[in-house]
Amino acid sequence: MRQSNRGKVDPFIVMDVMERARAAEAQGRRIIHMEVGQPGTSAPEGARAALAAAMAADPLGYTVALGLPELRARIAKHYRDWHGVDLDPARVVVTAGASAGFVLAFTALFDAGDLVGLGLPGYPSYRHILTALSLEAVGIPTTMEDRFQPRPDQIGTDLDGLIVASPGNPAGTMLSRDGLGALVDRCASEDVALISDEIYHGLHYDRPAVSALELTDDVFVINSFSKYFSMTGWRVGWMVVPESHIRTVERLAQNMFICPSHASQVAALASFDCTAELEANRSVYAANRQLMIDGLAAAGFPSFAPPDGAFYVYADSRHLSDDSLSLSTRILDEAGVAVTPGLDFDPARGAGMLRFSYARATADIAEGLDRLRDWAARA
Amino acid sequence: MRQSNRGKVDPFIVMDVMERARAAEAQGRRIIHMEVGQPGTSAPEGARAALAAAMAADPLGYTVALGLPELRARIAKHYRDWHGVDLDPARVVVTAGASAGFVLAFTALFDAGDLVGLGLPGYPSYRHILTALSLEAVGIPTTMEDRFQPRPDQIGTDLDGLIVASPGNPAGTMLSRDGLGALVDRCASEDVALISDEIYHGLHYDRPAVSALELTDDVFVINSFSKYFSMTGWRVGWMVVPESHIRTVERLAQNMFICPSHASQVAALASFDCTAELEANRSVYAANRQLMIDGLAAAGFPSFAPPDGAFYVYADSRHLSDDSLSLSTRILDEAGVAVTPGLDFDPARGAGMLRFSYARATADIAEGLDRLRDWAARA
Repeated sequence: MRQSNRGKVDPFIVMDVMERARAAEAQGRRIIHMEVGQPGTSAPEGARAALAAAMAADPLGYTVALGLPELRARIAKHYRDWHGVDLDPARVVVTAGASAGFVLAFTALFDAGDLVGLGLPGYPSYRHILTALSLEAVGIPTTMEDRFQPRPDQIGTDLDGLIVASPGNPAGTMLSRDGLGALVDRCASEDVALISDEIYHGLHYDRPAVSALELTDDVFVINSFSKYFSMTGWRVGWMVVPESHIRTVERLAQNMFICPSHASQVAALASFDCTAELEANRSVYAANRQLMIDGLAAAGFPSFAPPDGAFYVYADSRHLSDDSLSLSTRILDEAGVAVTPGLDFDPARGAGMLRFSYARATADIAEGLDRLRDWAARA
Repeated sequence: MRQSNRGKVDPFIVMDVMERARAAEAQGRRIIHMEVGQPGTSAPEGARAALAAAMAADPLGYTVALGLPELRARIAKHYRDWHGVDLDPARVVVTAGASAGFVLAFTALFDAGDLVGLGLPGYPSYRHILTALSLEAVGIPTTMEDRFQPRPDQIGTDLDGLIVASPGNPAGTMLSRDGLGALVDRCASEDVALISDEIYHGLHYDRPAVSALELTDDVFVINSFSKYFSMTGWRVGWMVVPESHIRTVERLAQNMFICPSHASQVAALASFDCTAELEANRSVYAANRQLMIDGLAAAGFPSFAPPDGAFYVYADSRHLSDDSLSLSTRILDEAGVAVTPGLDFDPARGAGMLRFSYARATADIAEGLDRLRDWAARA
């Protein structure tokens, strides 16, 4: 049977590490997981309780494509609370996770063959979703000096779109208000459609992240209940679109998704009232981050951009190996710590980088750093 | 901000009718809903109970992209139970509803500009998802004499793919084993990728529907927990793919969806054990269908292909109007019954057709038919 070209997306290289870790655990070995990209915590208790009540009272059939009106209104209020932005709830689109937001944004904005820029290193699915939609990903090499964020002078005039992420994955670094503003201006002057991935908002440790909506209405903002709200497996997120694009996105969502999970929308709405639990989660990440900043150098990885948010550190490993996949295999085998090779985030320069996640329990992070330090001392 | 061409999909015409019905209800009028495409029943009790238990015990984070292994195995067993087919669970892909199945199938199979055939009338989102993915929908006009299903001689050699649906929407008619087999053979000989939409399987009233998997492995079969299993709003379905396409679909799913809702997968798995409740739902549809077959002629709609499955009747309305949208507006205003204009399913000939859904309670269906009969007598 025929196979498309657009379907030939690269596999995630970390899958090999994860499978090797799984096999080691099946043999009784204890592995510290610094490769995972999700909280170990469940959806907040109040969110689960709200769904339990709704399941008994409501058939939970299809919602309208843009999502429950009360959830859209609550998300709009969130921009008032967190960012001082007055947002029309009509511009809020509830999505089946940030993933669905990207599919909808790219489809509403770009036609086959269009060029979309993104910083490297970056979340690998940006590139792969673009490929699947017959679009062309244009990698913009960013540097540790620029804290792994693109500069306006790197935004080519040939681009049709640009994806930015602050805090970003894999480095957890943020754009400053001025840095984001300069990219907004450059996109506006060059007619480049700007997509701002704000999925790690809420998980910041010094200053809060700036939303692109504080600077412009001419942007697609993508966010999710997966990270700060600790609801990865529920597949619910949101997007804020310019008023000019609401009807287009609504029609695309009706046809491509019908609606996000009604059950997940009910839980997501209640999660806004679970601040104490969510802030407790955040304080765990904050402690973990401090352990990482203090301990990574002793563990053999002195060079990284201090992370502002999310739960990752992206560290230079060139002094140990020029192949981050074989290096991560060695670390797994010799230290019992699973980490993600940089190759997933940057197909060329990622050979000299590793991503360390600190999303799990603090005791695990401490043990992981101890193991890495002992391993580095032996190596 | 730029708008893509692929994003310019048509709106659903029935939305105008639904908004008019909503406005009438807001003014206190009782409307009978024969326009809806979903069960009025909730997910089976056992499915909800399973989720309630899981929410207390498990963080419900991401699952692997292809879905929970135990759910994939249970779906494979379902083909043994219902169709006498031995199916490798590795070929089963759990999806975020049939919608995600179509996105994944089209992306894995076709590149921008490819031609995909589909019978008209048909589910409008086939056309619109194809457009959104820069593919070209090729309408195949089917007839009431052919029970609204395509014939092999209508499958052009220029096609790259073909979508069939049995039972179909809007007519509820099935392909016979021989009819489906002839299409399978034609697709094989012309190198046309076959996609079989089996979302209404389980909702049959005489003989069960034939799965394309009974005839070939060289097919993408798409199904869902939405209809027979009464879980529309949960957005969980499945796809069976040829062995040659498992890895491609897995990579696409990892990037475009990450995974289907974990909570919905837990509920879906338990729904297989809720046969008594699901069969009780089906017996309501069976009673409703008989009311429709007996009553539609008296209600002014004598001409339709007797429906084999699903919960729809697609009836000729040319004797009343050559504009099914204005006709459905008249029926709503004058009889208080919401129905779907055929234009959503067939942009040209649908002007002379209406779809009547009998998915709701039997008393509502009886009242709807009474209202239509009185209206027809007055008209």
